[in-house]
Amino acid sequence: MRRLLLISNSTLHDGGYLGHCKEQIKQFLSDKVKTVLFVPYALHDRDWYAGKAKEAFTTFGYDVQSIHQQPDALGAINQAQAIFIGGGNTFRLLKTLYDEKIVEAIRKRVLEDGIPYIGSSAGSNVATASIKTTNDMPIVYPPSFDALKLVPFNINPHYMEPDANNTHMGETREQRIKQFHEYEDSPPVLGLREGCMLLVEDRKATLLGKTDAKLFVRGKDPVEYKVGSDMSFLLQSTL
Amino acid sequence: MRRLLLISNSTLHDGGYLGHCKEQIKQFLSDKVKTVLFVPYALHDRDWYAGKAKEAFTTFGYDVQSIHQQPDALGAINQAQAIFIGGGNTFRLLKTLYDEKIVEAIRKRVLEDGIPYIGSSAGSNVATASIKTTNDMPIVYPPSFDALKLVPFNINPHYMEPDANNTHMGETREQRIKQFHEYEDSPPVLGLREGCMLLVEDRKATLLGKTDAKLFVRGKDPVEYKVGSDMSFLLQSTL
Ligand SMILES: [Ca+2]
Ligand SMILES: [Ca+2]
Repeated sequence: MRRLLLISNSTLHDGGYLGHCKEQIKQFLSDKVKTVLFVPYALHDRDWYAGKAKEAFTTFGYDVQSIHQQPDALGAINQAQAIFIGGGNTFRLLKTLYDEKIVEAIRKRVLEDGIPYIGSSAGSNVATASIKTTNDMPIVYPPSFDALKLVPFNINPHYMEPDANNTHMGETREQRIKQFHEYEDSPPVLGLREGCMLLVEDRKATLLGKTDAKLFVRGKDPVEYKVGSDMSFLLQSTL
Repeated sequence: MRRLLLISNSTLHDGGYLGHCKEQIKQFLSDKVKTVLFVPYALHDRDWYAGKAKEAFTTFGYDVQSIHQQPDALGAINQAQAIFIGGGNTFRLLKTLYDEKIVEAIRKRVLEDGIPYIGSSAGSNVATASIKTTNDMPIVYPPSFDALKLVPFNINPHYMEPDANNTHMGETREQRIKQFHEYEDSPPVLGLREGCMLLVEDRKATLLGKTDAKLFVRGKDPVEYKVGSDMSFLLQSTL
């Protein structure tokens, strides 16, 4: 059974690292998981990042191993009880997943073996159909924008409305997503506001957290969904 | 002699399309140029975009041909008196330049034949070393992030400082550029604020416009440069 917790962002402005989603993470992993495999590839300083993840998950009651400190990345994925991919730069993250040749292995562990997957920000982007709706700067060239395809739609993390007082002329987030939908066969995009997350359990998907989400479907007007909404219909679209 | 006018953005909040850079464009093209070849590839609706460019350049005293309405894109580049590449989505723009097989031809016309090149926003991104410092969403996968390499550095158009009142947790522009500079051999990034542009004439580069620019060099603190600053040193870096 597929189980995913896809979080918009790791840190809310009024809380510590993973503070706002602590309860959801504990409930998601339960006491069946003892050790979480952390993937720090989205940031440059992996040792620092692994320390930060370890600190948070230790207070939640879990051990953490960072994949970059294991002798064999593929072996680490194959033995993982649960995977947490942290945020940072989505391009760097996806390129490293391809470089380490673990894209297919993660898919198999999550979709076939049913190990729990937690993603935050860039880690949520790579869980979806593609990274084409990341907000990040393309600082490095991955071999593809296709991502782990654990779900058949896209996510836009840190989703936000434009600031009405701002005179900046760059595209709004909604305009950017509309440009994505100018392409045929572009899947739905779930805009997860900071504080929001999506729980996927097999064929059921539910919005959790403190804030709402906005769904963009090609050719349709965007629709707001409140915390608690059943989003299972998103899992029925085909890739 | 290489001649470029690289504009941060086409529209300032208090003016019409290309209104804020009208005088600089007229002085740059002078009366030697009669017809400008417009490249609308960064936006989906090319006819609409060509009309908008035509309207603006007509009031400046130039004819406009849009490359998408020519029978042969490569032939149009080879016969152009001047090229203007407009803004939109940088990934879509660069992919189309590669798809149309005109990357090398534009380089040759600008660097060898010396025809004037005007870029705005995405059109400025593609003029540089790479598109790795665009702000745009990666809605489509280009065959490379390498760009036209008309100059040996990168540009970040629409450059802006973070809003001090904003609690949003996404990376600031400066943090994103710092992540780009975590890679060895990453070239300088010129952050052009809206209203700012860079004039390049052979080995001389000068900031023009109403606003200042901020230069980011790997391993160094960023430096502010005022309108009128001589930026020629940026042309000496090698790719
Ligand atoms: Ca990020
Ligand atoms: Ca743009």
